[in-house]
Amino acid sequence: MASASSSSSSSSSSSPLFFLILVFAAALVESMPVFVPGSYQGSLKKQIKKVEQKIPYKTHYFPQVLDHFNFHSKSYRIFYQKYLMNSKYWQKGGPIFVYTGNEGDIDWFAANTGFMLDIAPKFHALLVFIEHRFYGESLPFGKKSTKSAETLGYLSSQQALADYAVLIRSLKKNLSSEASPVVVFGGSYGGMLAAWFRLKYPHIAIGAVASSAPILQFEDITPWSSFYDAVSQDFKDASLNCYEVIKGSWAELEAVSSSKRSLAKLSKDFRACKNIYSIYSARNWLWSAFVYTAMVNYATEANFMKPLPAYPVEEMCKIIDGFPRGVKKLRKAFAAATLYYNYSKTEKCFNLENDSDDHGLHGWDWQTCTEMVMPMTCSNESMFQPSSFSYKEFADNCMREYGVIPREHWITTEFGGMRIKQVLKRFGSNIIFSNGLQDPWSRGSVLKNLSSSIVALVTEKGAHHADFRAASKHDPDWLIKQRTQEVEIIQKWLHEYYIDIKED
Amino acid sequence: MASASSSSSSSSSSSPLFFLILVFAAALVESMPVFVPGSYQGSLKKQIKKVEQKIPYKTHYFPQVLDHFNFHSKSYRIFYQKYLMNSKYWQKGGPIFVYTGNEGDIDWFAANTGFMLDIAPKFHALLVFIEHRFYGESLPFGKKSTKSAETLGYLSSQQALADYAVLIRSLKKNLSSEASPVVVFGGSYGGMLAAWFRLKYPHIAIGAVASSAPILQFEDITPWSSFYDAVSQDFKDASLNCYEVIKGSWAELEAVSSSKRSLAKLSKDFRACKNIYSIYSARNWLWSAFVYTAMVNYATEANFMKPLPAYPVEEMCKIIDGFPRGVKKLRKAFAAATLYYNYSKTEKCFNLENDSDDHGLHGWDWQTCTEMVMPMTCSNESMFQPSSFSYKEFADNCMREYGVIPREHWITTEFGGMRIKQVLKRFGSNIIFSNGLQDPWSRGSVLKNLSSSIVALVTEKGAHHADFRAASKHDPDWLIKQRTQEVEIIQKWLHEYYIDIKED
Repeated sequence: MASASSSSSSSSSSSPLFFLILVFAAALVESMPVFVPGSYQGSLKKQIKKVEQKIPYKTHYFPQVLDHFNFHSKSYRIFYQKYLMNSKYWQKGGPIFVYTGNEGDIDWFAANTGFMLDIAPKFHALLVFIEHRFYGESLPFGKKSTKSAETLGYLSSQQALADYAVLIRSLKKNLSSEASPVVVFGGSYGGMLAAWFRLKYPHIAIGAVASSAPILQFEDITPWSSFYDAVSQDFKDASLNCYEVIKGSWAELEAVSSSKRSLAKLSKDFRACKNIYSIYSARNWLWSAFVYTAMVNYATEANFMKPLPAYPVEEMCKIIDGFPRGVKKLRKAFAAATLYYNYSKTEKCFNLENDSDDHGLHGWDWQTCTEMVMPMTCSNESMFQPSSFSYKEFADNCMREYGVIPREHWITTEFGGMRIKQVLKRFGSNIIFSNGLQDPWSRGSVLKNLSSSIVALVTEKGAHHADFRAASKHDPDWLIKQRTQEVEIIQKWLHEYYIDIKED
Repeated sequence: MASASSSSSSSSSSSPLFFLILVFAAALVESMPVFVPGSYQGSLKKQIKKVEQKIPYKTHYFPQVLDHFNFHSKSYRIFYQKYLMNSKYWQKGGPIFVYTGNEGDIDWFAANTGFMLDIAPKFHALLVFIEHRFYGESLPFGKKSTKSAETLGYLSSQQALADYAVLIRSLKKNLSSEASPVVVFGGSYGGMLAAWFRLKYPHIAIGAVASSAPILQFEDITPWSSFYDAVSQDFKDASLNCYEVIKGSWAELEAVSSSKRSLAKLSKDFRACKNIYSIYSARNWLWSAFVYTAMVNYATEANFMKPLPAYPVEEMCKIIDGFPRGVKKLRKAFAAATLYYNYSKTEKCFNLENDSDDHGLHGWDWQTCTEMVMPMTCSNESMFQPSSFSYKEFADNCMREYGVIPREHWITTEFGGMRIKQVLKRFGSNIIFSNGLQDPWSRGSVLKNLSSSIVALVTEKGAHHADFRAASKHDPDWLIKQRTQEVEIIQKWLHEYYIDIKED
């Protein structure tokens, strides 16, 4: 992803789902413009609050071990890991569907994974959503959890997977249902965790549904420019003019001088609640709108990160294409972005610069600075400003911020990814990689079958884990079909499992 | 395994290969007799020295990360991990055969795994033996490595597996041979690591040969009494009288009073170099002789832990059976044990009590007190004194010694083992579990095929990783056949790998 300086600086990886801190690294460089994604964090929190009251899950807390892989006195420390359960449809001995939580509050994921609730009655399944350590309420050191490397040090994907293994095993024992088959589900980073969980803990999960899981977004497995090229393609597919307007808007923005007067004018044009300090605040705000909208370019009206109409990319492009010729590109781009930020028409002004409180949630930042190094660049063909990725620059920023050096080869060493077809052709089984090609993260996921039971379900018009959303009467046929295929495959896994049990 | 008190106390697990500290826990209980296995550690060290000069490997040291799963400043500490290489037979691009080192000096394992050297020319294979962290020279904190839980905390099987993954990947890169297929080999605990490595790192190793790997010796997967029942069966098969003499000898030993005079007499009878402090020293010394001899009941003369004739259990029983009827059982048992301790006729007296220096090597002890909890008991049918296992007592001892609580369910959570056939029937591939039924550890290993490519090669007359020893002209047909099968299976893995590479 492009960093604050326009052409040569490092891009960092961003959270597949929340994308919370778009290019935090750049934000750390003193006197460089802050590059963070708009002001939606606050509204997200409000949404989560609303969600809590609605979702049909009971909250539990599990005493979890801090460090599964070492045995120091500190490793034995216990923290309380939040998980949600719904046993309304469960018949004892029936399957357990577990959502492997990702980088955020688990209620939020539960609320946006209606698919599991929809299919639970058919399978008589118990539903469990487990929160990822260091997110939501599952903070091993309370409020101090994300303050320094000494506490954050225990935040890693392997620890999270081990958490899930320990919790699931304990839960099954407590339910006296140890023979119940477990299927794991996850979207985005949670989907990566689900797939990896099946690969690392096949004795605990009989299968995994990994939706929009970019497990190949590491090192040079996937071309570094693919993410932004995919965002750009969505807009180009909607309208070539739209793509060109956005592509041309950056130069107009760069041309704005950084004088106080110019910034005040720009702030006014952008309906900023407060005058901005840098043109890059406006840039990042636009940038985020286009990226997120591509990600959630759902076929139906939805309210995932923000309320949006069906196919919002097309809607944005309609706004752009609707302007007369002479209007400045930047003005058109701004108007398009307001669809993302204000489809509900409730915002009177926009917070283009995040307030500092929002920076408290450093979990994903930390993960990108340690193991989740996903290099990204913008090519000349993208609608964004070209940018490169320098590992050194990225690492320097991480060192400055956290005192850690990213382990750039670790994820592929621990979980693989290189030559994945060759490796998994004769190893492993029972994983669905589902993707929608509208979602730029799909480019870093598995888009072809790897074996007869490690399969890819790809839809051309799907977006970021669209299949995991609750069914709606407006769902298009291809989405209904994708979900039906998933149900059939899960049925097959369960069928085989029950046969195998009997044979033993 | 029986503890020092004869009937009701806890048994601990012992090192599959070295069995270095037989029942350390008992040894920790004040005023209880020390139960440690004879005095062979010293001679072992001498042997290793000799071995170093002979084995055709070059020694290297790899800068290894201390903690792969966390990201504290300490996690980044580097230590130097020893590994051995032989590239005499390697053709670049050809396979790499890696031995996943277990709980001891890597030279020792290299010297006793002649099989790999024997087959290297046929495969044009590079040979690599990697030392396990915290053993041999691979001490992350130098001499202080095993002093306390704060340093030992980093000793775990998962860290060891990650070490192997990181080292292998780096090695392949440095050799510019990244497409070379890797096959891992391991015996005993090293075999467990090899099998687990294939399951956890299929992207790094295309297959594993796990010889005498008791991966099912955890929790209640394998009956707790099976190990000592198997030792006893070996002796019973050789001669029922032999079994009965040994079984009866313990009561005679228990009848010896603990007066100084009686102990002096016992010491003299046992040709002790120094008078012993407790009758249990004599018991443990005998016990170890029988257990180790059963483990290494090889079909040919061998010098694994000590020089021994072919089928040493039979030879021991010939000694016992050769005595006239009236002779005391204890005297017969002692005479049999001297076969183990003095087949080479070089010992003038025996060190029945280990000297304290030997206790420095606490690595395996630590591992049993943290994750390697393998409960063992002696049943009434065994030739040993009956004993039970109490997790609580075991845990109390670990707490006293190291300040740690064993995680008794951790290995099966992390690596599985329960219902293994069901789990691996449709998951994973390319593992050979080879076992000889003479070896008591075979009972905790995989003795039946789990799938078409996760197979068990079992020989009735084989002992502890007999297949891994160098070929000798005296090898019986069944051993030659077992090794041939292994070579054929490895050839098949490599053949498939090269086909798959081309298809990609």
